[in-house]
Amino acid sequence: VVLDWGTSRFRAALVQPDGGVVDRIETGDGIQGLQREDFAGVLARALAPWGGHAPFAIVGAGMVTSRNGWVEVPYVACPADARAIAAGAQRIPLEGAGAVLLVPGLIDRAATPYPDVLRGEETQLVGLGLERDATVVLPGTHCKWARIERGAIRRFQTFVTGEVFALLAQHSFIARMAAPAPAADWAAFERGVAIAAADDARSPGLLARLFAVRTGWLDGAVAPREVGDILSGIVVGSEFAEARAAGWLAGAPRLVLIGGEELATRYVRAARAFGLAAEAGPADASILGALVISGIVA
Amino acid sequence: VVLDWGTSRFRAALVQPDGGVVDRIETGDGIQGLQREDFAGVLARALAPWGGHAPFAIVGAGMVTSRNGWVEVPYVACPADARAIAAGAQRIPLEGAGAVLLVPGLIDRAATPYPDVLRGEETQLVGLGLERDATVVLPGTHCKWARIERGAIRRFQTFVTGEVFALLAQHSFIARMAAPAPAADWAAFERGVAIAAADDARSPGLLARLFAVRTGWLDGAVAPREVGDILSGIVVGSEFAEARAAGWLAGAPRLVLIGGEELATRYVRAARAFGLAAEAGPADASILGALVISGIVA
Repeated sequence: VVLDWGTSRFRAALVQPDGGVVDRIETGDGIQGLQREDFAGVLARALAPWGGHAPFAIVGAGMVTSRNGWVEVPYVACPADARAIAAGAQRIPLEGAGAVLLVPGLIDRAATPYPDVLRGEETQLVGLGLERDATVVLPGTHCKWARIERGAIRRFQTFVTGEVFALLAQHSFIARMAAPAPAADWAAFERGVAIAAADDARSPGLLARLFAVRTGWLDGAVAPREVGDILSGIVVGSEFAEARAAGWLAGAPRLVLIGGEELATRYVRAARAFGLAAEAGPADASILGALVISGIVA
Repeated sequence: VVLDWGTSRFRAALVQPDGGVVDRIETGDGIQGLQREDFAGVLARALAPWGGHAPFAIVGAGMVTSRNGWVEVPYVACPADARAIAAGAQRIPLEGAGAVLLVPGLIDRAATPYPDVLRGEETQLVGLGLERDATVVLPGTHCKWARIERGAIRRFQTFVTGEVFALLAQHSFIARMAAPAPAADWAAFERGVAIAAADDARSPGLLARLFAVRTGWLDGAVAPREVGDILSGIVVGSEFAEARAAGWLAGAPRLVLIGGEELATRYVRAARAFGLAAEAGPADASILGALVISGIVA
């Protein structure tokens, strides 16, 4: 059983040793609101429907290993390979029988101004495989860029792209201009990316670029139903512009996207505007990674 | 009577010809929610207490001149001096007697990717005076940087700093880490500004820098009661970093701040971190500007 136990959601997958998924469970029992003594009971109740498959190994990753989780599992420092991550995992014996293996997150002490951290993405990166060098982008609320090199996760960086987009789309002056769009408007999205990709001294950052949604609307260049995708393009494009300035695109790395299909499509299109072809990683990277870290798959 | 009639607030000042303020009125009758035919009545009711002072000239600026305002007054193009702005003003006769003079906003057609616009700040800039060259910063929800040169407003740029700060402080992961602070914590604010001011290739933009609030907190370097001011420093500092990249700080211009005292203090401190001494402009710049544009003061 592979757990992805995050802040607001509990997700479990019943997995065969070869990675085949037999069943999935998802509930709203995220770690927020849970006390330390609640975790074992929540887990037992959630997995009760799978009792006929017991005994099984249980591997968990995500915010369940954080300060507000079940047990705070210390971060493993970069560079880290699958063996180092496995060595930092903690076994929590369960009442009755069995145990949960909690996978540690990573810390990049070379990051500035403070060490950067992630929890959960280490398992996805291991699932992708650390054998081939790559720059990996894991979009989401807090998007991670990670560098895989010589068999290890060397460094990574967080961009709070998804959260900033959601705030602007729901609560800002931009929300008030927007009309609902029936589907993703890729032309509008790519115009937004282009605003961020342009090496334009007049719009060098996000705070300036965001006003282009209003000035474009006033200028008749942006229609209300294009507003959401222009905004998305500006925000995702600004992440790429920052990543470029931070050196992540130097040397035209092999770029791999790990994430849900719609977000991954946006990032692949944004990458193209920055001159890079990006490929999609495996859909169940976190499951593959959990099997490797737990030693079930070599 | 000088009106500052914005999106959410109606403000009026009863002013002597020398700029001395006799009385002020402020209500929640901003332009949002008003229909075109409502404006005259709202104004008449608001100014009724000053009936004993009639007749008086009425000058209005701000979003009241926008597409959703009383009358859409066409923008005046940069470069613009006080005479050009006055020439673009529109007189609206009032029932009975008198009129309102509505001051036009400005458009900077050289801005990219779309022409930039402002409404209301033109009056504050005229109130500051266009005789001495200066780079003027007008902080707020949508902060404006403007260049005064050779007697005219030459160009300007908008940064949506205030709105992004408010969204992050109220609704984001940062809000959940923050504890109330009894007063502005200038040391924390300046640490935030320094994160943005550092020519740091690892944190080249706002999306990356914002995560420093969490990593600093995890690292024990940021206390919950410092979170709000660190965030403020990062966001205001990022505005300065973008303005620097856009050339606004080149040649160490005379930097003037026009705005409320607390915001102006933040911006003066941020300017110092970017190597510039900034001075505060007149407190009632919009009143002084309205007197000039309406021809009451030469």
